[in-house]
Amino acid sequence: MRIVGIDLGGTNLRAAAFDGELKIAEHRELVGEPRDPESIADRIARVAGQLGAEALGIGIAAMLRDDRGTVATSPHLRWRDVAFGELLAARLPSLPIGIYNDVNAITWGEVSAGAARGCRDVLAVYVGTGIGAGVVANGELVTGASHTAGELGHTKVAWGDDAAPCACGQRGCLEAYLGGSYLERRYGIASDVDAAAAAGDPRALEAWTELATLFAIALGNALAVLNPERLVVGGGVLAHCPTLVELTAAALEIAAPRASLEPLAVVAAELGDDAGLVGAARLVSRNLRRRPYT
Amino acid sequence: MRIVGIDLGGTNLRAAAFDGELKIAEHRELVGEPRDPESIADRIARVAGQLGAEALGIGIAAMLRDDRGTVATSPHLRWRDVAFGELLAARLPSLPIGIYNDVNAITWGEVSAGAARGCRDVLAVYVGTGIGAGVVANGELVTGASHTAGELGHTKVAWGDDAAPCACGQRGCLEAYLGGSYLERRYGIASDVDAAAAAGDPRALEAWTELATLFAIALGNALAVLNPERLVVGGGVLAHCPTLVELTAAALEIAAPRASLEPLAVVAAELGDDAGLVGAARLVSRNLRRRPYT
Repeated sequence: MRIVGIDLGGTNLRAAAFDGELKIAEHRELVGEPRDPESIADRIARVAGQLGAEALGIGIAAMLRDDRGTVATSPHLRWRDVAFGELLAARLPSLPIGIYNDVNAITWGEVSAGAARGCRDVLAVYVGTGIGAGVVANGELVTGASHTAGELGHTKVAWGDDAAPCACGQRGCLEAYLGGSYLERRYGIASDVDAAAAAGDPRALEAWTELATLFAIALGNALAVLNPERLVVGGGVLAHCPTLVELTAAALEIAAPRASLEPLAVVAAELGDDAGLVGAARLVSRNLRRRPYT
Repeated sequence: MRIVGIDLGGTNLRAAAFDGELKIAEHRELVGEPRDPESIADRIARVAGQLGAEALGIGIAAMLRDDRGTVATSPHLRWRDVAFGELLAARLPSLPIGIYNDVNAITWGEVSAGAARGCRDVLAVYVGTGIGAGVVANGELVTGASHTAGELGHTKVAWGDDAAPCACGQRGCLEAYLGGSYLERRYGIASDVDAAAAAGDPRALEAWTELATLFAIALGNALAVLNPERLVVGGGVLAHCPTLVELTAAALEIAAPRASLEPLAVVAAELGDDAGLVGAARLVSRNLRRRPYT
């Protein structure tokens, strides 16, 4: 069966067709304009047709409202309250379709075919412009009661009047310290600071140590609650900041309960840009096996 | 089928026989001495026999190592590395037996028959001498990779040299502030401070506001990651400190992401001392339905 996975972000619309574990075709186009839901649904239907999809999994940079692909909000696409699943179903009436949050699709990609292959309990954390996380427990994605599980970026690592304001309207969120946009505003280009810290520059080292502590506290607290066997770390900021990752791993030793660290391996994400495509395709094919499409 | 649930703590060994949802008999004895594993296994086997058990679920105040009832450590029972499941199976060879961490059994009691009945995603937090939590995601107990999920008491709410030392050997754990033994050492009898705070005593109010903030931060961070629909709160400290609970609920409004609060109801545990018995019985009966005993 030919499963097509799609990764719909704010910039790129990427797609790949899979036959089992084999990628047999891929496609990429810019999202560009217009990016209204109807236009994007038209384009996804065309791509799915071109790639010969017999089932379609889509990871989308959006907060979802249900498991039928209703988008509550997507700042990247500038969508709000869009019945995207219905728009697609109207265009592809006979096709099994699954629509997932992009971070969940990426996480599932790493769990099914990447850095956490074969693991039952996983926390995957991505630090880029924003911070997203995916949770897998008992071998299942944890989406939560309203599809907002994994909001590690908005766990609080500071409180009171000094806590940094976050775009979400609250204060002290991890993202307001470690998210790429905040980080560069405060310290300059992250990879430069990272190189300076590696070279022993005291100011860079101080900044990075403080940041690594906050990151380790947030991670350690999630590990204490979830007790995963694998912590997958990825995303642009971490990819360009090996020193920050190293300092965080060291800080984790005192931030996380010892019992949580015992079974844990901290690993880098493996699938890069393909993770979302692979994950979305695997999720829809998994759901098909469980609940055959009728 | 007659299912017996047992709650084995440091002080009491409690048991109840259930026929479906109906409690048809109960039993309580002090653990006392000797409390070595062989003696306790003998006594549980006798109680199970007296109550006519056709299946046996046990919630035990211990950190487990696997799902066959191997106890890694139980400070309450003074056990370490005990193959308790094997000891019981040798005495009750034909009986289906399930052995669970006590907080998980209690949590499952509230989820199957108490304050979180019918809920798919739940966080249950108990504050007594220590702090324990149970996590249910996608309708399943989350035990984690090494049976230590739910360690909310050892999430960090302070760090650096000022952070309070915890009996676990680390610093800044929630338990080192809010756990009953720490709390009374620092402030005196918790229920007295709570009454004073309710009456407007400034010192009590200041202490309670600080504590409520730390508790809300820890809770809010877990809610951000898990996105449950129900937060169950219970345990002796909270039962005797309504003002502290009220202040915590208020602090949660700014500590937890708004999206996590939207679907959430905060509720008091309903089953009290019965929760562990009910939960252990329901867990073993649920596992029987899934994996018939052979």
